[in-house]
Amino acid sequence: MKKYTGLDDITDLQELIAEARALKANPYAYEHLGKRKRLVMLFFNSSLRTRLSTEKAASNLGMDVTVMNFNSDAWKLEFEDGTVMNADTSEHVKEAAKVISQYGDVIAVRAFPTLTDKAKDESEYVISNFVKYATVPVVNMESATAHPLQALADAITITELSEKKKPKVVLSWAPHPKALPHAVANSFIGMMQKMDVELTVTHPKGYELSDATMKDTPVVYDQDEALKDADFVYVKNWSNYEDYGKVLATVDSHSSWTITDEKLGDAKFMHCLPVRRNVIVADEVLDGEQSVVIEQANNRTFSAQVVLKKILENLN
Amino acid sequence: MKKYTGLDDITDLQELIAEARALKANPYAYEHLGKRKRLVMLFFNSSLRTRLSTEKAASNLGMDVTVMNFNSDAWKLEFEDGTVMNADTSEHVKEAAKVISQYGDVIAVRAFPTLTDKAKDESEYVISNFVKYATVPVVNMESATAHPLQALADAITITELSEKKKPKVVLSWAPHPKALPHAVANSFIGMMQKMDVELTVTHPKGYELSDATMKDTPVVYDQDEALKDADFVYVKNWSNYEDYGKVLATVDSHSSWTITDEKLGDAKFMHCLPVRRNVIVADEVLDGEQSVVIEQANNRTFSAQVVLKKILENLN
Amino acid sequence: MKKYTGLDDITDLQELIAEARALKANPYAYEHLGKRKRLVMLFFNSSLRTRLSTEKAASNLGMDVTVMNFNSDAWKLEFEDGTVMNADTSEHVKEAAKVISQYGDVIAVRAFPTLTDKAKDESEYVISNFVKYATVPVVNMESATAHPLQALADAITITELSEKKKPKVVLSWAPHPKALPHAVANSFIGMMQKMDVELTVTHPKGYELSDATMKDTPVVYDQDEALKDADFVYVKNWSNYEDYGKVLATVDSHSSWTITDEKLGDAKFMHCLPVRRNVIVADEVLDGEQSVVIEQANNRTFSAQVVLKKILENLN
Repeated sequence: MKKYTGLDDITDLQELIAEARALKANPYAYEHLGKRKRLVMLFFNSSLRTRLSTEKAASNLGMDVTVMNFNSDAWKLEFEDGTVMNADTSEHVKEAAKVISQYGDVIAVRAFPTLTDKAKDESEYVISNFVKYATVPVVNMESATAHPLQALADAITITELSEKKKPKVVLSWAPHPKALPHAVANSFIGMMQKMDVELTVTHPKGYELSDATMKDTPVVYDQDEALKDADFVYVKNWSNYEDYGKVLATVDSHSSWTITDEKLGDAKFMHCLPVRRNVIVADEVLDGEQSVVIEQANNRTFSAQVVLKKILENLN
Repeated sequence: MKKYTGLDDITDLQELIAEARALKANPYAYEHLGKRKRLVMLFFNSSLRTRLSTEKAASNLGMDVTVMNFNSDAWKLEFEDGTVMNADTSEHVKEAAKVISQYGDVIAVRAFPTLTDKAKDESEYVISNFVKYATVPVVNMESATAHPLQALADAITITELSEKKKPKVVLSWAPHPKALPHAVANSFIGMMQKMDVELTVTHPKGYELSDATMKDTPVVYDQDEALKDADFVYVKNWSNYEDYGKVLATVDSHSSWTITDEKLGDAKFMHCLPVRRNVIVADEVLDGEQSVVIEQANNRTFSAQVVLKKILENLN
Repeated sequence: MKKYTGLDDITDLQELIAEARALKANPYAYEHLGKRKRLVMLFFNSSLRTRLSTEKAASNLGMDVTVMNFNSDAWKLEFEDGTVMNADTSEHVKEAAKVISQYGDVIAVRAFPTLTDKAKDESEYVISNFVKYATVPVVNMESATAHPLQALADAITITELSEKKKPKVVLSWAPHPKALPHAVANSFIGMMQKMDVELTVTHPKGYELSDATMKDTPVVYDQDEALKDADFVYVKNWSNYEDYGKVLATVDSHSSWTITDEKLGDAKFMHCLPVRRNVIVADEVLDGEQSVVIEQANNRTFSAQVVLKKILENLN
């Protein structure tokens, strides 16, 4: 693997999942692979799971890790070509990416979308510039439109826990007071499209995701109908895509979308976390036995570890 | 040891101090004990000594360490049960504690009190929720009402430096411009009550600590009388406990409480640091030979190291 | 080497450069030298290259590294002697430096100048107080008036890339919208004065550097004349020294000083980074083959590594 910025970087998903599960069973089997190799993790946004799981994954492989909160620790970056840098940006991503490549063997980047400028977000200007100018492999720790490490952890989780050959997986929108990115939904849908599952998406009218994401995945606007006989219910809020980055109505007006035990039925409950209790999902679900969110979070380690292993194996 | 959140987690203090001193003499004797074990240190507040000493302690034991400044790096946590999380908190401590337990083998937490809500502070809502929901051992790096790693370092220091079988130890309040927590005073008193020392507490009337802390420890309001023939003088400010979190008068009006060479007599001067010079204590004392504050700070490493060693030994 | 706070700490520059180049060829040759030794890096200001390169350098030598952003993570420091600490500073550098010396074997400090108080800046009150009170060696990661790790990396770069016995090196001022320190210019000039190069400095009238820095180095106010037949052109902005910390005119009024391909001629282009594109230097130069800024940044690792090696070898 030369990089991991999106699902297109996966050549054989089943093999990747199998290898991740093997690493989970034996996390230190490759702890010499990363010796004298350094992962530089750059955060333009907050992180809990992504940071801790990726750091642990790298460490399990024997890598050294540097964590840099770019906004507070370093210099404000310029991403535009040809700019006269006479204002508030101090360093161009061209230099930053090349320079960081001198100090790290792999660069991981987290950079959320603006949610105000759709074209800019869809250009993935942060991570795509790091890929363009870095001379070492780049890993996406959630970008403007994708969260492929999360989606791989989700695929591992569903593979581990599924009791059927072809489980029914439902992605349900749920209300949230703030405007949230589409990254998790995009990557989850993309990942499920690669797996042998029956995928349904449900959300209120007006919250349609991009055609590039949806492809031929069916949308069922009636949440109850969508959830019927589900094996896995993945819940996630996203802001409007058409009226880009907007939240169309209050949480209260969408409170019927909150996932409850009754809605969940016999399905397993999934969420990438952090999750707002009693807004996205009722306490009873999160505290119940059908919630697999903690195991999902655990699988973030092995999702990151298998990706880093593949990248390390490909270094010289 | 299953956790170290308060002095109650100590079963045999003398043995713990002896073992800490043995680690001080031979810090790397157990550097394989923590191999492939990770300490996740969560800071909700500033730290210098606690962070550096605990990091060194873990490293001496061969542990990996992750430092996370929770407020700036991660998501704002919710601590209330049953809340509809429709406002500014993004993640519930239930998930956070369980999730972090997937990535770390020991979790250490620093979270200061509000000093405005006594009941909330005394419930120790941050650290007690981490203990409740984490599935790995929790270490207190100073909580709302306790600082047991500091108190253990203090006990080590007094044990090392005492020239008497039963030294006289005085805890003296001193003035400070800001409202400070009771944690250090509480834990120091609790620790001294477990040791074979003659303990006296002195402070201006109105600065009484809680009955739960004081038990039968005598208070002498006349500082000069209290300090007479002291072997160790531990100085610390705390805000009002009765009129919770208040500073009753200006520093100047309490300037007679500042510790000077004359007040100190032949005693050793102790303070947990950071200390405000010429407010808490005169330069002459801190720069003189009777000050043991740097050695106290040094003992923070071995206080943390013995606690982590005991916890690691108890991990199956 | 007992410390590295300025160029005066170098006893044999040629030997130091040779050893840095040997480390570059074989970075792990001394990876047992730093075993069980800890570098504590204290940042009072932002950093990208300095942090990552120094961290990698220490790691190459087998050291453990702690990074602390002092302003956000720790307590506000007092640097004045005899102060009554009754205001916003919580800890005196006397205690901080002594305490950190308990936890680290080497302390590295970055602290920029005020650019408002020349006497204070020239006293190097931050780093000189760390040197005075720390009981372990101190390394300067850029102080008010000096950046000796950068200058050493520059010396390594020029030594590696020079095709002449005595190359012509020109330090050229360039415009910048903000008031910048003199540290890089001071240390670069001081370093070149120690090397067998022909050094010329060029800047607009009024931007004279201190006599202590310049010694007998010639200033040529006409940039074109200064740049003629240069082998290396080092470009850097600095604010006014006489009218201390001021920017005398707009960037536009100095736009003729921006380095272009035409001005550069056949010389190699050097800059310490971060650099403002099309203000300090045109895109064509940075993106061209004569720019060596990325290799300069790479040499920061070996500049730091040779300094840490020398310091570690001197720790009994």
